[in-house]
Amino acid sequence: MKEIIVKASDAYRILIGHDLLKETGPYVRELGSVSSVMIVSDDRVYALYGETVEASLRSAGFRVFSFVFPNGEKSKNLEVYGQLLNELAKQALTRNDLIAALGGGVVGDLAGFAAATYLRGIRFLQIPTTLLAAVDSSVGGKTAVDLSEGKNLVGAFHQPSLVLSDVDTLETLPEEQYRSGVAETLKYGVIGAEDLFRRWKTTPVKAMYEETVEAAVTMKRDLVEKDEFDRGDRMLLNFGHTFGHAAEACSQYGLLHGEAVAMGMAVITKAAETFGYAASGTAEELTETLRFYGLPVEIPYPKEALLPHLWLDKKGRGETVNLIVPERIGKCRILPVKKEDLGSWLEAGGVL
Amino acid sequence: MKEIIVKASDAYRILIGHDLLKETGPYVRELGSVSSVMIVSDDRVYALYGETVEASLRSAGFRVFSFVFPNGEKSKNLEVYGQLLNELAKQALTRNDLIAALGGGVVGDLAGFAAATYLRGIRFLQIPTTLLAAVDSSVGGKTAVDLSEGKNLVGAFHQPSLVLSDVDTLETLPEEQYRSGVAETLKYGVIGAEDLFRRWKTTPVKAMYEETVEAAVTMKRDLVEKDEFDRGDRMLLNFGHTFGHAAEACSQYGLLHGEAVAMGMAVITKAAETFGYAASGTAEELTETLRFYGLPVEIPYPKEALLPHLWLDKKGRGETVNLIVPERIGKCRILPVKKEDLGSWLEAGGVL
Repeated sequence: MKEIIVKASDAYRILIGHDLLKETGPYVRELGSVSSVMIVSDDRVYALYGETVEASLRSAGFRVFSFVFPNGEKSKNLEVYGQLLNELAKQALTRNDLIAALGGGVVGDLAGFAAATYLRGIRFLQIPTTLLAAVDSSVGGKTAVDLSEGKNLVGAFHQPSLVLSDVDTLETLPEEQYRSGVAETLKYGVIGAEDLFRRWKTTPVKAMYEETVEAAVTMKRDLVEKDEFDRGDRMLLNFGHTFGHAAEACSQYGLLHGEAVAMGMAVITKAAETFGYAASGTAEELTETLRFYGLPVEIPYPKEALLPHLWLDKKGRGETVNLIVPERIGKCRILPVKKEDLGSWLEAGGVL
Repeated sequence: MKEIIVKASDAYRILIGHDLLKETGPYVRELGSVSSVMIVSDDRVYALYGETVEASLRSAGFRVFSFVFPNGEKSKNLEVYGQLLNELAKQALTRNDLIAALGGGVVGDLAGFAAATYLRGIRFLQIPTTLLAAVDSSVGGKTAVDLSEGKNLVGAFHQPSLVLSDVDTLETLPEEQYRSGVAETLKYGVIGAEDLFRRWKTTPVKAMYEETVEAAVTMKRDLVEKDEFDRGDRMLLNFGHTFGHAAEACSQYGLLHGEAVAMGMAVITKAAETFGYAASGTAEELTETLRFYGLPVEIPYPKEALLPHLWLDKKGRGETVNLIVPERIGKCRILPVKKEDLGSWLEAGGVL
């Protein structure tokens, strides 16, 4: 088992290893003063792992409740958030109690936002069960729900009290969820881990989960500790996300987040090379690797459809947008670009 | 004009004086980088002051939008919160923009919670137009909405960027809103301002608004600076609120908040005297003063009806409840009381 400590507003541990789910109870016991735990999960994940986590918590002596909603991004809205809050109040959870987010990014974001705001903030535990959540969304304290106007437009910064990353849960990932997580994983390679990126080109991520999650989380930890509230270097984690979010919105969230990020990374890297920011060959190397994993490398929407969403993307609000632009595999920079120039960036990235 | 600086997570100014509403625009200009302002208000207050504030903001060059909802505590819910968030997204407010809360406690709490969570937090301006908001809720950064299970069960700590407390707006307060604000004002006297309390016994609060608001806000500022997140001395501000909230809930929010606080203060002070915590005569002096302002001094609900709400009150979650107990006018202490003893406190306070 690997252990990583994050020193944010409150310090917390990330545990990465095998067979962790059935140790949930003892780990929660170590947090102290918890009486009740509300497990928040989606129907797909809860069917697989709900019983294990519940049983472990019960035998450790906790009162356990569960709130299960339909799998998918469509559930990450204010309505489900409100239902969860009412359930927390109905079961009379207190400021000493805990929410356990058992699932992928949607579960973690929604449960985390409820934890951030119920009674003005209670503790929560992340139990990521997707690669995307394990390498990215379960760490760093960004919580959110979507509005019809866009993704993640409402939320809070609220750090988990513990992350239990049981890599065994990744073995049951549907193929498309795996691919989606690989996209976020490769992102870490481009922004700061050249060696790992080169290994992932030949050794599939799924053959080295523990090492991959540890490396990604360590990079993210370093960025979060430097910049908890996302005003500086933490923005590097948005590599591929600005154009990716626009593509996701155009697809009306039919695209998986990782697929959209893959497209976004490919397009911005191509544009960066065209404009001379990235070393020659960077785009090709990234594109080949994305293809190796069956990930898309083009955005299937026209510029006109994407641009309105770029204006709305919360990271792009204001007069300029901070694009994350690769210089080579393993190094990116933050580049403020005027909104009126975004169209030419898309074009240079091959979007018509 | 009086100026008070609050040094919380971010420092901000509280300005107290006459004719401030029509200076809203220039004051917002001083905050820097704001393009758009969303005025959040209720229909009663907006009809009185909306135009003045809008005109001032427009002539200072801002894009101005407004979101107006029906007056009253019943609007402080997740549904109206969601409508406001959607409006913010629709008008494409950015992280550089501002929400202006124009109204009483309900407006400030709701608008503040939206500001705390829209795009994970944007700035907001408090323009309190009730005595209760001016002396209490507009300062300190507690934001919230209600659930059907109880008041203020969802929220966040989010400090305003500026408080414009125009005491002229207090001249149009309906009598019951005035009384309600007086209850919160007298609270400050009991917890730490003996001299002022004695003056308010003979000089009506409405004859000395500027001085009253300044004194109350200064006391609150001192408590908030010591204890922004309400884990220690800030709890003194809950004097009268534990039993008050239960009475409010029993009335299904038919009682005004200040009326409920008045009852709560009277009951806990009587109990404190009975149990020997408060000096003899403290309860009588408080009760007389509350009566002078036409405020209620008894809780019109039986113990059995109140107790379930006390268990649910968020300040009362856990095995003990922190009661705020007067020792004399001008000095209170925080007393942890076991939940099973709350019934005898109510009885000692005259609740049957």
